[in-house]
Amino acid sequence: MDDVKYLRMKERRKLKVGFQGVEGSFSQQALIKYFKEDVQMKNVRDFEDVFKLLKNNEVDYGVLPIENSSTGGITEVYDLLRRYKAYIIGERCIKVEHHLLGIQGTTIEDIKEVYSHPQAFHQSSEFFKKHNDWKLIPYHNTAVSAKLIKDTNIKSKAAVGNKKAADLYDLEVIASSIHDNKKNHTRFIIIGNKLEIPEDGEKISVVFTTPHQAGALYGILRYFAEKDLNMLKIESRPKIDHPWEYFFYIDFEGNLREKTVKKALELIEKNSASFQLLGNYKGHKG
Amino acid sequence: MDDVKYLRMKERRKLKVGFQGVEGSFSQQALIKYFKEDVQMKNVRDFEDVFKLLKNNEVDYGVLPIENSSTGGITEVYDLLRRYKAYIIGERCIKVEHHLLGIQGTTIEDIKEVYSHPQAFHQSSEFFKKHNDWKLIPYHNTAVSAKLIKDTNIKSKAAVGNKKAADLYDLEVIASSIHDNKKNHTRFIIIGNKLEIPEDGEKISVVFTTPHQAGALYGILRYFAEKDLNMLKIESRPKIDHPWEYFFYIDFEGNLREKTVKKALELIEKNSASFQLLGNYKGHKG
Repeated sequence: MDDVKYLRMKERRKLKVGFQGVEGSFSQQALIKYFKEDVQMKNVRDFEDVFKLLKNNEVDYGVLPIENSSTGGITEVYDLLRRYKAYIIGERCIKVEHHLLGIQGTTIEDIKEVYSHPQAFHQSSEFFKKHNDWKLIPYHNTAVSAKLIKDTNIKSKAAVGNKKAADLYDLEVIASSIHDNKKNHTRFIIIGNKLEIPEDGEKISVVFTTPHQAGALYGILRYFAEKDLNMLKIESRPKIDHPWEYFFYIDFEGNLREKTVKKALELIEKNSASFQLLGNYKGHKG
Repeated sequence: MDDVKYLRMKERRKLKVGFQGVEGSFSQQALIKYFKEDVQMKNVRDFEDVFKLLKNNEVDYGVLPIENSSTGGITEVYDLLRRYKAYIIGERCIKVEHHLLGIQGTTIEDIKEVYSHPQAFHQSSEFFKKHNDWKLIPYHNTAVSAKLIKDTNIKSKAAVGNKKAADLYDLEVIASSIHDNKKNHTRFIIIGNKLEIPEDGEKISVVFTTPHQAGALYGILRYFAEKDLNMLKIESRPKIDHPWEYFFYIDFEGNLREKTVKKALELIEKNSASFQLLGNYKGHKG
């Protein structure tokens, strides 16, 4: 199937997009913000399931977290991206914000018990220190906790969750932005089976290994500098069968429609032991 | 207290060394292999506890895992190393090997139940596929599982553990090297409160941030190349309060007693936004 036919076929029906997690999760939030339009969503349990859906053409795209600004790269997704030879076609940053949610009409004085994922309690510890008479009950995740509050329908129970979960389960925000770190973001990538290079794509992601010799990594990074390609990020991942050797994942600025960028990439590929172009897309800083 | 007095005081008594985990763990194995001599060991629950022991001078050194050759860097230890301003004074690699352990006289036909950490079952899945009539019971960790087998003293129960755990609890190796990946190693660092530069130290670790401008990382890496300092590893960790900015941890070859190495480090420090020397020690590849 050629590209034009493929795109026409997609246009005729709703796009199918896969994500990992549950309804109301940050992944779903990223999906909705990125696609804007009305898409058909399919959620799965594990990161790898999203790649499998894509490989089997059960979805057109997938949405996955790749990095958190406080905790760092989500290494499993980096590894899967390489193994499944998927392409990054876009990205979206989502601010990690927690709110205290209750059923309509709940006031802060009503609350006795709060349900959420332990991570959400941990990320909102300053707020909960001020309410140390509340019982904090660890639960599956923020979205499922919100659903529980809706289902039990009691004003003494609250949940920690995001705005999407509040909307989904018709809950009220009793206290907003209760998270400690106001600069905590998660970056999500949109993956597809084909390389798509939008005209305004200014971010390129590659992964390569270096020949086994002294100075090899620097020898390759040199091409980025010589061609004035600004490196945005470098991430190392181990080569499982070769202890203490690495895959290098590099994000840098550029568009492959430009000749100098194309030339630099050719030189990098030629001097690498292995090379994979992961995508050329429009970056998003949140 | 000056350095000479400090060292003399240490010589007079047994060295105290802290590690995270339990008796018979891979951390303890690394500790014993590194120190050889008879040291006083103190084990704690969390990685951070080792740094606290060191800071409070309750131990002379600490032993911590920093990287696994299959799963990658242990990011929490990277972050703690910088926050606590500890120095790396040595390293030791340990091969991750699992054996099937039982009480003395047990044969493979006796076994009905096996206890271990789920990770150890996962890492030995090929072996267990051949014995799918056995019941695999998830347990705290490999060392505690070995202790359980010793305490129950029944031939139908076995554990997955390492040689150290077998010795510690007087168990027999019923099947050796049952792990799938024969090249799985964990690298441990030895940390101390003072910079120690042995004459045969050929590995240097630093962490730095770059000025916030295009090409800044490359501008610093250039000094490694110009001075022929071979980069061994690069690891990025997020700056929590500055989304999408990073700490760069770099290991490279060199000894600070050499003038060119010292000069290169001075240039790197001068051109970084922040800089910390983590250590100059003898590397170990396992």
